[in-house]
Amino acid sequence: MTFAATIITLYPEMFPGPLGVSLAGRALERGDWSCETVQIRDFATDRHRTVDDTPAGGGAGMVLKADVLARAVDSVADERPVLAMTPRGTPIAQTRIREIAAGPGIVILCGRFEGFDERLFEARPQIEQVSLADIVLSGGEPAALAILDACIRLLPGVMGAASSGHEESFEDGLLEYPQYTRPQQWEGRTIPEVLRSGDHAKIAAWRKARAEHDTRSRRPDLWERHGGAPDRPASGARRKD
Amino acid sequence: MTFAATIITLYPEMFPGPLGVSLAGRALERGDWSCETVQIRDFATDRHRTVDDTPAGGGAGMVLKADVLARAVDSVADERPVLAMTPRGTPIAQTRIREIAAGPGIVILCGRFEGFDERLFEARPQIEQVSLADIVLSGGEPAALAILDACIRLLPGVMGAASSGHEESFEDGLLEYPQYTRPQQWEGRTIPEVLRSGDHAKIAAWRKARAEHDTRSRRPDLWERHGGAPDRPASGARRKD
Repeated sequence: MTFAATIITLYPEMFPGPLGVSLAGRALERGDWSCETVQIRDFATDRHRTVDDTPAGGGAGMVLKADVLARAVDSVADERPVLAMTPRGTPIAQTRIREIAAGPGIVILCGRFEGFDERLFEARPQIEQVSLADIVLSGGEPAALAILDACIRLLPGVMGAASSGHEESFEDGLLEYPQYTRPQQWEGRTIPEVLRSGDHAKIAAWRKARAEHDTRSRRPDLWERHGGAPDRPASGARRKD
Repeated sequence: MTFAATIITLYPEMFPGPLGVSLAGRALERGDWSCETVQIRDFATDRHRTVDDTPAGGGAGMVLKADVLARAVDSVADERPVLAMTPRGTPIAQTRIREIAAGPGIVILCGRFEGFDERLFEARPQIEQVSLADIVLSGGEPAALAILDACIRLLPGVMGAASSGHEESFEDGLLEYPQYTRPQQWEGRTIPEVLRSGDHAKIAAWRKARAEHDTRSRRPDLWERHGGAPDRPASGARRKD
C-alpha cells in the first residue's frame, strides 16, 4: 500500500526536496509513498489570485485567507488526517507519527506570513493544529518535510535492516542510550568495558541505566512524563503525584 | 555581513533544497547567507571510505565513527557555533536561534543511522547536541533545514516589511494570538468585534488575553515556564514557586 502524502502549500517546488534522495527517495521510487502538492493560489477566486490580506485589528505581515484555505483543504478531503503546521499547535509527538504512518497517508497544510485566519479551524475542526518545535519558521514547509520524513522511515520495508526503529529516543518515553563503535581506542578514549563484555544482560542493564540517567539530566520534562522522580530516581518518596 | 552556514552531512545534495526558494532563496541570492556543505565521507581514511560501523555491545543499525566525524568537524573549526542534530540533545529554543542568527554563522553536523559515537562529544565539548522535536527522523538533515530556516528569517533585511518578527509565538514565551483577515463574514463566522473597533488599546488587551488563554490551554508547559498559574491565572493564590 502506498502512503499518500499531500502538501498544501504556496511553494510546491519545495517537495519532495530532501525527501527525494536517500532513504525517503528510494522509498518514493519504489512507491512506498507518494508525494502530491496542492498550490493554495489555485483556490483564490479573484483576478490577482490573492491568498492573503492584512490582519484584522492591525499589525505587521499578512494573514492567509480562510475562504481560500478552506477550498484548498476541501479539495483533498478524504479519510487521511489533515495537519496544519502552526506554532500555535500541539507539539508533534512520536506516538502521533506512528499512528499516522500506520494509516493511509497524510495531508499537511503549510502556512506562510503571519499565519492562518483562525476561522479556518473553527469551520474545519478536523484540521489538527500541529507545531514541530518551539522555534519560528518562515513557513510550514520545513516542518512538513521533517514530519513526512519521520512518517516515511516507519513505513514497512523502508528502514529494512538499517535500524530496528524500536530501541530509539522517544519510543519508550526515554532518550536513547549513547552509542559507540570502533576504533576501540580513540584519542585516549575507550569504549565502555561493559559493551565489550559479550554479556547481553549486563549490556541491556547498562543501556537502560544510561538512557534513564541521560533522560533525567538532559530532559527533565520527558523524565517526569515517564513517571520518574525528579531528584532521586531510586526512591519513591519524592515522587510527584 | 554574510551569515555563513556549513552543513556536515552524508547528503550534501539536500542543501540548500527548500531554502533555495522563497524568502531564504532570495536571501541566498542576495548574499545575506551562504550555504556550504562538507561531505563526511571525504574524511574517511580507508579504501572503502567507511563512515560507520556496528554498535559496540550489539544492536541494530550502524553508528557514525568518532574519528571520521571529528576530522570533518575539525576541518571547519572557527568561531561559529557547532550544532549536532540528535534526539539525545537539548531541544532548540527560539532564544538560541536569535543568538545564533546574530552571530557569524552556524555549523550543523547531521547524523544518520543509529547516531554518533558518543566519544565525539567527550572529545569535542564545543559541539552542542541539539534536538529539533520529540520525533525520530531518518537523519539530521530535515532538522538542519528547519534550524537554518529559523535563523535566516531573522537576518537583517530578510523579512523586510513581511513580518515584524517580534509579535510571534515563543518570542515572549507565549503562543501568538489568533489572526483574522477579510472577508468580514465567512461561512457565518465573523471577525471578532474588538478587532474592528479601531481602539488600539482594546485590541492589544484582547490579543494579550487570547495569547495567554491559548498558551494556558494548549501549552501548559510553556505557560508554567512563563510563570503563569496552571489553573487560575487571575489569582496568585495557587501560583507555584
